[in-house]
Amino acid sequence: MEVENKYVSLKHHIHGHPSESDFELATAPLQSAPGSNEVIVKNLFLSIDPYQLNRMKLYSSSHTAIPAASKIEPGQRIDASGVGKVVASGRAELEEGDVVVGLLGWEQYTVVRPGTVLMKVAAKDLPLSYYVSVLGEYSCSRSAQEGCTDAMIFFTTATGSSGLTAFAGFYDVCKPKKGEKVFVSAASGSVGSLVGQYAKLSGCYVVGCAGSKQKVDLLKGKLGFDDAFNYKEEVDLKSALRRYFPEGIDIYFDNVGAAMLEAAVANMNQFGRVAVCGAIAEYTNAGKRAAPDLIDVIYKRITLRGFLAGDYLHLHEQFWAATTDYLRRGRMISLEDVSVGIESVPTAFVGLFRGDNVGKKLVRVCEFDG
Amino acid sequence: MEVENKYVSLKHHIHGHPSESDFELATAPLQSAPGSNEVIVKNLFLSIDPYQLNRMKLYSSSHTAIPAASKIEPGQRIDASGVGKVVASGRAELEEGDVVVGLLGWEQYTVVRPGTVLMKVAAKDLPLSYYVSVLGEYSCSRSAQEGCTDAMIFFTTATGSSGLTAFAGFYDVCKPKKGEKVFVSAASGSVGSLVGQYAKLSGCYVVGCAGSKQKVDLLKGKLGFDDAFNYKEEVDLKSALRRYFPEGIDIYFDNVGAAMLEAAVANMNQFGRVAVCGAIAEYTNAGKRAAPDLIDVIYKRITLRGFLAGDYLHLHEQFWAATTDYLRRGRMISLEDVSVGIESVPTAFVGLFRGDNVGKKLVRVCEFDG
Repeated sequence: MEVENKYVSLKHHIHGHPSESDFELATAPLQSAPGSNEVIVKNLFLSIDPYQLNRMKLYSSSHTAIPAASKIEPGQRIDASGVGKVVASGRAELEEGDVVVGLLGWEQYTVVRPGTVLMKVAAKDLPLSYYVSVLGEYSCSRSAQEGCTDAMIFFTTATGSSGLTAFAGFYDVCKPKKGEKVFVSAASGSVGSLVGQYAKLSGCYVVGCAGSKQKVDLLKGKLGFDDAFNYKEEVDLKSALRRYFPEGIDIYFDNVGAAMLEAAVANMNQFGRVAVCGAIAEYTNAGKRAAPDLIDVIYKRITLRGFLAGDYLHLHEQFWAATTDYLRRGRMISLEDVSVGIESVPTAFVGLFRGDNVGKKLVRVCEFDG
Repeated sequence: MEVENKYVSLKHHIHGHPSESDFELATAPLQSAPGSNEVIVKNLFLSIDPYQLNRMKLYSSSHTAIPAASKIEPGQRIDASGVGKVVASGRAELEEGDVVVGLLGWEQYTVVRPGTVLMKVAAKDLPLSYYVSVLGEYSCSRSAQEGCTDAMIFFTTATGSSGLTAFAGFYDVCKPKKGEKVFVSAASGSVGSLVGQYAKLSGCYVVGCAGSKQKVDLLKGKLGFDDAFNYKEEVDLKSALRRYFPEGIDIYFDNVGAAMLEAAVANMNQFGRVAVCGAIAEYTNAGKRAAPDLIDVIYKRITLRGFLAGDYLHLHEQFWAATTDYLRRGRMISLEDVSVGIESVPTAFVGLFRGDNVGKKLVRVCEFDG
């Protein structure tokens, strides 16, 4: 099989804000060894996630947070969670035409090497895009279960596991009680939009913040948040939160870090919990760091906990059952923002850091033809 | 009974570093209502604790961390944990000559109002100073148990509960496992010196930092730390910690905040835990705040938890049994730094922020005459 494959790669390591010019679109023939156990997948939907940026930076040798195996070098193909259709299979359990979910790549076709788990999509009643948005952890978490390395846990989280991230982060890290006051930042984003919905379904009072009127309207209208605000219109985040939470915040689900985390800690109640899920405000600017008041942390006995979805695979079954049920009964919606064509990947990715996306950012690489 | 009572009070609210001139020594006749249930205590040892500074500041009305009832106003007497001798008792269960522990004050005599718990010291084999140092929580925690208000929990922690703070913080917040690598800051201080000893008794590898050669020698010699360093001699705390913890830090018991917390987080292992116990570097300078890298917090799944000893009264019995046993068998020592005379209180207190004290700072107000 002789196929030309378009793929997106990095021109150089990224420092600060990413821009379209940091990426290039290249073409190369698909390289698959005949007679091997490889599977060739034609990609349908790809997941576009902020955290990929941290894999694209150049780190000093002493940096230990990002596993070496997950760093992205210039020129390399960039793996990302995706859903695709099998066009050639060297594995007995998969055949041409099967729809699969797994760690694919920012490219038209992915040659999936032996040992990489591909999950066949069985249920036909849910949109395929769900498998890289709200149900995105499906394949990756299972893949991680079979020999769970650091890099795998990293991938599980970094690429398209919005659903399990939101579920585990909210239920296990935040341990919500009915009636508690929940604040979610980047609330119209892939994870935030789900956290807010889980929180409402758990009987909490939920306020979200986002960066435009359109997003705020959507949070209050379509997603059922009790209230929402545009952080760009607030000169003082601390007093904004005091206005939205006159009785204080019990749970803060943090996707942004920086000044918002400081303001949330200042407004937290005793025994407040912060799920440190993301810090998008800090990803592009290492100097812009949250410095929460430790006197608040101590005297209000606040817990801040960083977490990765990959550590919560034991919750997978519970997550899956609850979430697919909510989706099927219309009690929860998957907010997706889809760009079209492999050429749109750089703009889709860069847009995450400009707040362009409304909901989970996906690229539809090609139409599903059944 | 006509007695003149010398006491220390605040001249004005404190901003930034405290100095001796922020305090004044005054004298007033003891005011006790005859026939009431009051108890007059002649103070022997008083506890001098950094956190009192946070009670002495002026806060904006929106500040919620410090309970209003625990704020100290200029001219007021300043309550503090202490041990003293009953000179007159309106309570049936106490008589003249009894030695008691409780919330006394920075003064020669304290009139203890009805409702304030005073515990009689029963064991005669332990030095009286222990009841305001390593065993200092004894009275306060019991007092808090009988109707536990915020201000009481605050007092339990703020005033002389080094032992329970160290015990609960280390065992419950840090959840140590044998062989784990533990870092303690302000390690020769009242809490730090105990945490290091508990950690060694739990089979951990322990490194402490302090601010002088004398203190470092003491940590390594007398207190049995595996290693120790003078943070003032390090230009780069991050690389210092990398040198002392080539395999990374599992537990950081934080008494200082600021740059040391940032450096510790950078050197932490996956699933590292930070007990946020104190932030002395930030008490005198609200602008000097720790801004740990959230990418470390997230990807290494680090937990930072603020805590107060007053929330751990359920561990009191266990703490007391273990600690008195260790002390009696010489497996643990109480490191105390004692100044003499009520006049020495301001200097003793101010010295905490200059690092003058070696171990728990106490003032011996008068000699115990049996």
